[in-house]
Amino acid sequence: MKRRVQFYETDMAGIVHFSWFFRYLEEAEHAMWREAGLSIAGGSGVAWPRVEASFEFHRPLKFEDEFEVHLRIVGKDARTIRYEGVISKDDARIATGRMTIKCVSRKAGEPMRSIDIPPAIDSLFQVAG
Amino acid sequence: MKRRVQFYETDMAGIVHFSWFFRYLEEAEHAMWREAGLSIAGGSGVAWPRVEASFEFHRPLKFEDEFEVHLRIVGKDARTIRYEGVISKDDARIATGRMTIKCVSRKAGEPMRSIDIPPAIDSLFQVAG
Amino acid sequence: MKRRVQFYETDMAGIVHFSWFFRYLEEAEHAMWREAGLSIAGGSGVAWPRVEASFEFHRPLKFEDEFEVHLRIVGKDARTIRYEGVISKDDARIATGRMTIKCVSRKAGEPMRSIDIPPAIDSLFQVAG
Amino acid sequence: MKRRVQFYETDMAGIVHFSWFFRYLEEAEHAMWREAGLSIAGGSGVAWPRVEASFEFHRPLKFEDEFEVHLRIVGKDARTIRYEGVISKDDARIATGRMTIKCVSRKAGEPMRSIDIPPAIDSLFQVAG
Repeated sequence: MKRRVQFYETDMAGIVHFSWFFRYLEEAEHAMWREAGLSIAGGSGVAWPRVEASFEFHRPLKFEDEFEVHLRIVGKDARTIRYEGVISKDDARIATGRMTIKCVSRKAGEPMRSIDIPPAIDSLFQVAG
Repeated sequence: MKRRVQFYETDMAGIVHFSWFFRYLEEAEHAMWREAGLSIAGGSGVAWPRVEASFEFHRPLKFEDEFEVHLRIVGKDARTIRYEGVISKDDARIATGRMTIKCVSRKAGEPMRSIDIPPAIDSLFQVAG
Repeated sequence: MKRRVQFYETDMAGIVHFSWFFRYLEEAEHAMWREAGLSIAGGSGVAWPRVEASFEFHRPLKFEDEFEVHLRIVGKDARTIRYEGVISKDDARIATGRMTIKCVSRKAGEPMRSIDIPPAIDSLFQVAG
Repeated sequence: MKRRVQFYETDMAGIVHFSWFFRYLEEAEHAMWREAGLSIAGGSGVAWPRVEASFEFHRPLKFEDEFEVHLRIVGKDARTIRYEGVISKDDARIATGRMTIKCVSRKAGEPMRSIDIPPAIDSLFQVAG
């Protein structure tokens, strides 16, 4: 995914606020799902809350910088998917992120409950070799 | 409502990004509803989308500034409520905002439809004298 | 400018939070400046705070909706520029925004002070016919 | 630090978007610095970029929930400070976050450079026992 830094993503230190990197990672995730023909909010009573998310920050991003998010699936089991994403600009590594999501059932009026990933979704995502 | 500027609300110009003022206004609105014993997301099939929102910006706010939002209802009809909010710091006027919300029905699977404000809610909010 | 709604731009009502429309307008503004060969944060001791911003909201936007922002300059004087932006999706008008910015001098340690728009910038922007 | 969930912090899943937890952690950090008589943006040519940030999410937060952020310093060396923060609601643990910041010099026109924490700041923060 390619992206340009927006003004409202910067803070008074003149660089992108660190909370935005987690949103960049999620944008890349949802683009990956669209490429697989899915929407992560696709209904059918299933949702995908985040279990863990982390970033290491190597270099800052600034206003109007163009950067790339390279997202891969690095792990999968019956109920979770683990991603790793590298954010880079002109071949310099800016930040490295990791995120684990889990599959839950989602019905109006009921609390979310962990369930197995539906096979029709599971079959579309492979762990990167 | 009293509030302090957070770091992530500033931008690279060193001041609060203008989009945040609309969120400050909304925070004050929801505090006003809580004081009336209500939650604006209180269910019962009713929701309150914004119809219009505007701000005039007089002076900037900076990181860790303490400011006040003084919100009043300045107009009401069967289906809408109009607010005006003044944001000030140490008696200096920072910004003046206006916002109109309308009452809509909200049922799963149906589009939002404009309806009259339920009397139990309407009776709790008076136009400021 | 074309854009897709991101997950973090939605709120619990299932639609884009109204504060995001002001950011969409600003994104389109900065893209307009880039097309003119400028960066709005281009240094040279000048900055562009917002004086006024407003939106009328006609229809909601939802997650993954693709929309367009059509931004025009509708007024200009020695020290200010006025924009109007129409947000639309599949030819349906979603929202109409207006924003006025003013030119200020920006020097470290000094308060911002209103100044005339530098001729080199002024000559690049025309009021839409 | 005590805090209430704001409407714009929720997403279409009806819960607080995970990116907000990192902002909550930072709010608690800046409150800790204020209690020590400091501002994290206090000038004197020093800034505090984040090196790492992570969260484990145990339970969701919802609109108008009141929650607490309990932040502690869990590690310190000559150039970095490590925090751990627990977010809880009514004694239920909602999420656990960690964040490492480093001290850099900050001069106009120069890139940020890692430096030792100034003694006047270092002496104010102790690793929690």
